[in-house]
Amino acid sequence: MRIVVDAMGSDTNPVPDVEGAVMAAREWGDPIVLVGDRAAIERELAKHDTNGLKIEVVHASQVIEMTDKPAESLREKPDSSIHVGLKLVADGEADAFVTAGNTGVVLAVAMLSTLKRIRGVKRPALTAIFPSPTGQIVAADIGANADCKPENLVQFAIMASRYAELAMGIQSPRVGLLSNGEEEGKGNELVKETLPLMHAAEGINFIGNVEPKDVVQGATDIVIHDGFTGNVFIKTLEAATGMMKTLLKREITASTVTKLGGLLVKPAFGRVAKIVDPFEVGGAPLLGIDGVAIVGHGRSNALAIKNGVRQARRAVEGGVIEGIREAIGSNQG
Amino acid sequence: MRIVVDAMGSDTNPVPDVEGAVMAAREWGDPIVLVGDRAAIERELAKHDTNGLKIEVVHASQVIEMTDKPAESLREKPDSSIHVGLKLVADGEADAFVTAGNTGVVLAVAMLSTLKRIRGVKRPALTAIFPSPTGQIVAADIGANADCKPENLVQFAIMASRYAELAMGIQSPRVGLLSNGEEEGKGNELVKETLPLMHAAEGINFIGNVEPKDVVQGATDIVIHDGFTGNVFIKTLEAATGMMKTLLKREITASTVTKLGGLLVKPAFGRVAKIVDPFEVGGAPLLGIDGVAIVGHGRSNALAIKNGVRQARRAVEGGVIEGIREAIGSNQG
Repeated sequence: MRIVVDAMGSDTNPVPDVEGAVMAAREWGDPIVLVGDRAAIERELAKHDTNGLKIEVVHASQVIEMTDKPAESLREKPDSSIHVGLKLVADGEADAFVTAGNTGVVLAVAMLSTLKRIRGVKRPALTAIFPSPTGQIVAADIGANADCKPENLVQFAIMASRYAELAMGIQSPRVGLLSNGEEEGKGNELVKETLPLMHAAEGINFIGNVEPKDVVQGATDIVIHDGFTGNVFIKTLEAATGMMKTLLKREITASTVTKLGGLLVKPAFGRVAKIVDPFEVGGAPLLGIDGVAIVGHGRSNALAIKNGVRQARRAVEGGVIEGIREAIGSNQG
Repeated sequence: MRIVVDAMGSDTNPVPDVEGAVMAAREWGDPIVLVGDRAAIERELAKHDTNGLKIEVVHASQVIEMTDKPAESLREKPDSSIHVGLKLVADGEADAFVTAGNTGVVLAVAMLSTLKRIRGVKRPALTAIFPSPTGQIVAADIGANADCKPENLVQFAIMASRYAELAMGIQSPRVGLLSNGEEEGKGNELVKETLPLMHAAEGINFIGNVEPKDVVQGATDIVIHDGFTGNVFIKTLEAATGMMKTLLKREITASTVTKLGGLLVKPAFGRVAKIVDPFEVGGAPLLGIDGVAIVGHGRSNALAIKNGVRQARRAVEGGVIEGIREAIGSNQG
């Protein structure tokens, strides 16, 4: 298996990107292709012991910034690490692409100029994979489609189900539709129109409407929403846990006694931080694209990049793309 | 000032409801009207020292459950504590109504059979008032209107602005529109169509789109959203802080050392819990109704009920209803 890692993806590229790629090459032994500025990559690689590792470098002369717009990047940066990396997968020279770069650009380049959509997929989805106290949850869409039609949500559910099953090993993953109440009949127009279609869809284990508390408590394996709602949902989760951390730190450091207590509870805090840490997962797939592409957070560290490669490997080994192709096909018409 | 307290509102009514009313009568000295089952209320009152307090009881023979539907309650329970209490305000016999009861029923009874809407208000809004590290934030709508039009959101902004100013003392409160990105142009169709109307509206201090992290960090005083998105937003905040508490407790009690540390950091935890505690605020107003009605959480304790009375007193003293009437009037046509 040959995985492409975008060396220019993270906010502090290429440092964590290259280190994570080295870690992945060491852990699994399979070839890793680093794509990006060759000189910068080789400078980074020289800092690590890469003896015996299968690491190749493919040069890309352009770099996508987090502020770059998809349409302009598509037109003006055809030799970016994102373009070059995705093209390697589209051309069959690699099995998957892992990046901590600009999600909107990855989606646009994958969809419009390299991998293209899986036949029958109307709208690809951005996903997040985040931890619950009992496991991991896949959320889709989290921002590719601010406004959705009911049939888009059904396709997101089908694709996320295949991903959870084939790449994450969750048998018959539960699918919940995010709503403002669990009862059928609750929801906005989109949710109300989507509910019967979800019940009718083949090959998904639909459990009905779910509320945010159900999701964070692990009552579902997959949560489906339009990209606007999903983006607000994921960012609120992130903001709330971040706020709790900030407040706890502030109050614990406010007195000597609580500071001492803070030292003693540190291992417990560490375990909680690990549970709610998005970098433990290391990225999430673009669903609906005809190839495996895993996108991580711009703030990714080396561990996150390595774990992104793990996600990619599992998706390839599980045959996720073929699984989605079949499932979308059998839900047509 | 005479405030009506629903004795049958909370999940464990009438215990915290009556105790909170007694606390409020003691703190401010003004008359409190307890409405609900007279025998149950008097049994509770007998447990407290009410000597010298101005507490009246008005009997209501019916009780609204949390599972009751608005339309049926409206028709079948005309003598519920919610109906009777709101009618006292509508008839000018009291200045405000405070309840920890079924929000949907309060809204329906207030809007359709007692207080009615303020002239010009197209859709009333449910609000939440929640803490940020630097103050309090008003969120509207959080569930009265799952689907909204742009002009509804503008009215929510106008009403919440007058409430924040007149009842909470926030000068020129900042209004943010919840979106999946701060940049203008981000958002779903509703947000994009609402943005120019917000900029054009008179008497609001509109700061543009805001993301969840901006809200929890206190970068705005008011956050506006449709009722579906707002409900997901508020419930996600609640679920995420709840999950953090559960996880921390679990991990801290896992070993003797961290348990000891837990004892030492307890005061710090207490301060954080107070900051994120919805009961500190004690409820939030229905906006757009022609009278002051404050609705608290079903899980309200006595302190929350007392603080609900505080909210009601401030709204009455600040002349919120007149303020909203004028602001809606001057934004007409």
